[in-house]
Amino acid sequence: MADRKTLKIGLIGTGFMGQAHALGYATAEKVFDMPYGLSLHRVADVTEEAAARAAHRYGFAGWTTDWRDLLADPEIDVIDITAPNALHKEMALAAIAAGKHVYCEKPLAPLSADAREMAQAAKAASVVTQVGFNYLCNPMMTLAKQMIEAGELGEIRSYRGIHAEDYMTDASAPHSFRTDPVGGGVLADLGSHALATAEYLLGPITGVMGDCVTAINSRPRRDGSPAPVEIDDVSRAFLRFDNGASGSIEANWIATGRKMQHDFEVHGSKGALIFSQERFNELHFYSTEEAPGRRGFRKIEAGPEHDPYGMFCVAPGHQLGFNDLKAIEIAGYVGAIGGQHPEPFGFDAGTRIQMLVETILASSAAAAWKTI
Amino acid sequence: MADRKTLKIGLIGTGFMGQAHALGYATAEKVFDMPYGLSLHRVADVTEEAAARAAHRYGFAGWTTDWRDLLADPEIDVIDITAPNALHKEMALAAIAAGKHVYCEKPLAPLSADAREMAQAAKAASVVTQVGFNYLCNPMMTLAKQMIEAGELGEIRSYRGIHAEDYMTDASAPHSFRTDPVGGGVLADLGSHALATAEYLLGPITGVMGDCVTAINSRPRRDGSPAPVEIDDVSRAFLRFDNGASGSIEANWIATGRKMQHDFEVHGSKGALIFSQERFNELHFYSTEEAPGRRGFRKIEAGPEHDPYGMFCVAPGHQLGFNDLKAIEIAGYVGAIGGQHPEPFGFDAGTRIQMLVETILASSAAAAWKTI
Amino acid sequence: MADRKTLKIGLIGTGFMGQAHALGYATAEKVFDMPYGLSLHRVADVTEEAAARAAHRYGFAGWTTDWRDLLADPEIDVIDITAPNALHKEMALAAIAAGKHVYCEKPLAPLSADAREMAQAAKAASVVTQVGFNYLCNPMMTLAKQMIEAGELGEIRSYRGIHAEDYMTDASAPHSFRTDPVGGGVLADLGSHALATAEYLLGPITGVMGDCVTAINSRPRRDGSPAPVEIDDVSRAFLRFDNGASGSIEANWIATGRKMQHDFEVHGSKGALIFSQERFNELHFYSTEEAPGRRGFRKIEAGPEHDPYGMFCVAPGHQLGFNDLKAIEIAGYVGAIGGQHPEPFGFDAGTRIQMLVETILASSAAAAWKTI
Amino acid sequence: MADRKTLKIGLIGTGFMGQAHALGYATAEKVFDMPYGLSLHRVADVTEEAAARAAHRYGFAGWTTDWRDLLADPEIDVIDITAPNALHKEMALAAIAAGKHVYCEKPLAPLSADAREMAQAAKAASVVTQVGFNYLCNPMMTLAKQMIEAGELGEIRSYRGIHAEDYMTDASAPHSFRTDPVGGGVLADLGSHALATAEYLLGPITGVMGDCVTAINSRPRRDGSPAPVEIDDVSRAFLRFDNGASGSIEANWIATGRKMQHDFEVHGSKGALIFSQERFNELHFYSTEEAPGRRGFRKIEAGPEHDPYGMFCVAPGHQLGFNDLKAIEIAGYVGAIGGQHPEPFGFDAGTRIQMLVETILASSAAAAWKTI
Repeated sequence: MADRKTLKIGLIGTGFMGQAHALGYATAEKVFDMPYGLSLHRVADVTEEAAARAAHRYGFAGWTTDWRDLLADPEIDVIDITAPNALHKEMALAAIAAGKHVYCEKPLAPLSADAREMAQAAKAASVVTQVGFNYLCNPMMTLAKQMIEAGELGEIRSYRGIHAEDYMTDASAPHSFRTDPVGGGVLADLGSHALATAEYLLGPITGVMGDCVTAINSRPRRDGSPAPVEIDDVSRAFLRFDNGASGSIEANWIATGRKMQHDFEVHGSKGALIFSQERFNELHFYSTEEAPGRRGFRKIEAGPEHDPYGMFCVAPGHQLGFNDLKAIEIAGYVGAIGGQHPEPFGFDAGTRIQMLVETILASSAAAAWKTI
Repeated sequence: MADRKTLKIGLIGTGFMGQAHALGYATAEKVFDMPYGLSLHRVADVTEEAAARAAHRYGFAGWTTDWRDLLADPEIDVIDITAPNALHKEMALAAIAAGKHVYCEKPLAPLSADAREMAQAAKAASVVTQVGFNYLCNPMMTLAKQMIEAGELGEIRSYRGIHAEDYMTDASAPHSFRTDPVGGGVLADLGSHALATAEYLLGPITGVMGDCVTAINSRPRRDGSPAPVEIDDVSRAFLRFDNGASGSIEANWIATGRKMQHDFEVHGSKGALIFSQERFNELHFYSTEEAPGRRGFRKIEAGPEHDPYGMFCVAPGHQLGFNDLKAIEIAGYVGAIGGQHPEPFGFDAGTRIQMLVETILASSAAAAWKTI
Repeated sequence: MADRKTLKIGLIGTGFMGQAHALGYATAEKVFDMPYGLSLHRVADVTEEAAARAAHRYGFAGWTTDWRDLLADPEIDVIDITAPNALHKEMALAAIAAGKHVYCEKPLAPLSADAREMAQAAKAASVVTQVGFNYLCNPMMTLAKQMIEAGELGEIRSYRGIHAEDYMTDASAPHSFRTDPVGGGVLADLGSHALATAEYLLGPITGVMGDCVTAINSRPRRDGSPAPVEIDDVSRAFLRFDNGASGSIEANWIATGRKMQHDFEVHGSKGALIFSQERFNELHFYSTEEAPGRRGFRKIEAGPEHDPYGMFCVAPGHQLGFNDLKAIEIAGYVGAIGGQHPEPFGFDAGTRIQMLVETILASSAAAAWKTI
Repeated sequence: MADRKTLKIGLIGTGFMGQAHALGYATAEKVFDMPYGLSLHRVADVTEEAAARAAHRYGFAGWTTDWRDLLADPEIDVIDITAPNALHKEMALAAIAAGKHVYCEKPLAPLSADAREMAQAAKAASVVTQVGFNYLCNPMMTLAKQMIEAGELGEIRSYRGIHAEDYMTDASAPHSFRTDPVGGGVLADLGSHALATAEYLLGPITGVMGDCVTAINSRPRRDGSPAPVEIDDVSRAFLRFDNGASGSIEANWIATGRKMQHDFEVHGSKGALIFSQERFNELHFYSTEEAPGRRGFRKIEAGPEHDPYGMFCVAPGHQLGFNDLKAIEIAGYVGAIGGQHPEPFGFDAGTRIQMLVETILASSAAAAWKTI
């Protein structure tokens, strides 16, 4: 251990995701056996107050109000971008140009063309990348994938995925980046998670038919005047998968009462799985191999048998929290930097999600199926 | 009460639904205040054994192996058809021609053109009709409709309906009427329920985009030889409602593990409802009018406040069963015969469902939206 | 079938349970293959209006306002008592003296000494008896018993039973038979169900330690004046079973929000069961024989594999209702009258429950364990 | 912030709880505004390997194999004890003698007399103490307490608490400290949590009647020979509270299938709460103030309205994990050290829990109620 190199992190942004990342580094360091140690080197935010406060609070050695300082810092190995979406591209390309590994919150960029440019730049520069699709880091999600791949469900036939929340239910909520015609909308914001989960579990999507709906046609500007809204509040898609299965997703940010309905249900010839992020330490499994009269969906509770739960807790039933998922994401990324395995969800994967989002939007606009 | 007329029933068919109807008559008679008494007059089935057994068991005064005998019987007021789907049209038209009221199990007919002909004949003959969409008779479903209409959810914005079961999961299950190219398929069999519930709650559907998928391409004939299968095993549709909401339904009979997932979720500007037929004595209600920090989906359990639960049981929590829903359906039908209210779900309504099914199938085949 | 004798029923009482019994006879007749047919012969209630109305509604051939008329009627085979608890003894003894079989709602009598006298009289007269503990007639409860007896849970170690409702939560609810010092109280009313279920599943209770608590010390009389209340609102008991297991029950009628929490959880060396009457078409089963990482409580949904569900419905997931449980109870009783099997829950069993109730009350008063 | 003092931590023990504490410090530091910074100064474990590994992994500046070194270290402010239960007393008294604040995992000591001695020593030395009852640190538990105290449930009448797991189900699991006659048994191990929660929510317990049962009478020694077992596998108690309510708890470590059933249900005159640690980001609330026909248990999901959830995550529905509860516990302790509020759960509280445990055991042995 003595000789283990330490990766120095430069974090951009100190909001919700900035904090989640800072916590994730601290936890990953303590929980996982990673090929590198982690050092919170410097943090950047737009105001001195925010940057200094975050440095102090999260234990960064230094701070700056100019994110470009991080790129110029030769000690920094990884640039972590949790700044507003519109800045992801510029920041990431600059970081790549500086030879840094880049960890970027989702979405990689509002437009897939930009995302693709970022992915290509990363590849050309041989830096290791990660996009923050943390729901995939849940041990129960991993279990689901393993069960599907091991054939425990038999041949996969149908899939239903949802990501529904209600933070845009209030029609008086102001216009923001979320409702920006470029990169905004629920499909980009939440549907991207539903799509990532669908491909994580079943493999590539090959065809889509979209239905992207604006339910609230006007939202107030900051000055109170009404702004017409064109982006999607509810988006649905029919899906075809390369494995022959069909499915659907729904993304909905006006799903009153729902706080985290990132759910899926998948049916195979021999079994089925039901999952809800609302109770994400559980996975419900049905097997036709049980005796007649004894069949039913089994509530499997997360425990040490479900990697890497056991790194957090040696006893079952104690439960991981959302911030723990970030630690798992980070450990996976650090493992990829160390060459232990491919990028778990790199810029290529992030680009693909953006492409899927755009294809579904285009399909909806054209009212026609699109091939991926 | 002394002068209350008695409706004499002639029942055709004594299988699953035949029994459910026979039980329904007996229970309705004892539970509800109806404008007519009910008398189980004669029952018809194709064999002497079945017909005699049913007459004895269910208390019919007589039986026959020729269903036409029921039409010729001047004492019979209502013909109740639970025979195979393919016979519904012939039987219903003959019953209407004989001036009988007609109660027909779903689907009204395999083709909507036939259903329409039946509905028009009934109208011309001024007989009262009913199609068996029993899930709509659940007091919690009625409550949901009342809450929506009373504005308890505010403006309705999105809807998600499902009817999934798993009785066709086994690819070795033999070819049958269910997989017949005419009138077969999951959209007709289960999707019809999902569509009926959607319109019951939200009102007319105005546009559909279908995705009807054959997942099991071959099933054995009775002699064991493989028969190609063309009908749909999983069908999905995007929906537009006249009230401005968008939505979706899924019908799935290969949903391994699901026995009765007739579910819906509906989101309004002020509240939401979640329902599952798997626990059909409950309705889950979220209201934004609760205090912050105290909001959540409320599990309303069926009780005497939810008509007509109280006719079955004076105390809450005791629960209705499936056969009770049939009694409610029958009471509604008898009320319509007595002129107390319009047909709850007559041949016009049954025709509309068939039309919706066919339009979704056509939309899927054309890969294009269809207007209703 | 032609020669099958018909049992003629004389029903006393036409309230909640009177209706449930009337429905139960009608359904049992149509659903089960019983050794006798059933005929609703005469019904008695205290007013002409109630008696005539019930006769008309439920299909009794005649009615009376004097329940003794039923005993004098030589055609009547079975006297069914759903009158107020305080009258059970007098009615049952008279019916037994008249040589009738007797079906009595619970409790058999407010005092176990009276119940015992009734049981002995029935035995001496060789009539067949039944006490209405309908929750035991649920196919999922039967399944639980079968699984325990078949050793699917291994050695049984601990048990937790509850029957909690909230109909006495309101302290302004008037004094009634429920709060009568003789035979009143929650342990008699609801605890009797919890005790019946405990013994049904695990066999004889051999020791009890009670804790019977009056939570609301005064309730209004009908004239509004306060009456002191001495009976129990919440009663708990520790239990020892003959099979070596220990357990507990709680009876609670001030359990705000609970409408039908008749629940149990039983743990064995190899498995466990969880049940709630709130969702009584489900039984949750855990087996240590599942593979590690795949274990969990399985939600078994009632279906045709679980006798006698299939008599009501050939497809799983449709669900039985409360009134269906009464039909099952009646079918079991009629089978006992026909000599097919012992009394499912006769006066001896009813006496035992009353004795358990009294022993727990005595234990609580003495603050000491009591042996059964 | 610049002048904020840093508390230096000396941690004894690096197992399950050692890691949970180390993670808790790191997270608390980043999430909360505490009156002190935290520095992981030195860690002690019995082997060099364990101590060095923990120091490296969790970021302690130094390590030792002699826990007394930590006491001798003048820089250390807080001694954190996660060593085996039997050592708690010796370590804590020594730490107190050295003038350190002491944070001790539960149980404070196997015997309440020892615990009391520790509490008195701490008081005499004016050091601040904490015992690790982390379930109380859950925001939903805090919410429950607040709702009860604010009268949202009305007058509290009955309580039911459970802590059941299944880690001792296997009779071949070896004899260990858990089954030691001194301080062992399920009531001490799990019942202590159930008791802590009961008093946290309802206030002081004033009377108990225990039922402590050995279900597995023999367990193998490490050499395989059978050792008789005398401690309790299932313990139940009736409770009386100072507020007038009655209740019960059950502790069970042979509850096959249960991983974390730390549950409670509390009924008041106006409302009720249901909670399960199995889904500890939820609290279910019933209010009689809802409109008739609209009442039901509401699933409140943890969100920023429920302090201190918002410190971890600005959006609802993301969920805290078990290790986050430790961070909350630590923040509360540090606040007490800083004089911001009383000890949340100090040695006095820990002593009381031990006393309750011993009183229940004594009550069970005497088969008699005991006054607290």
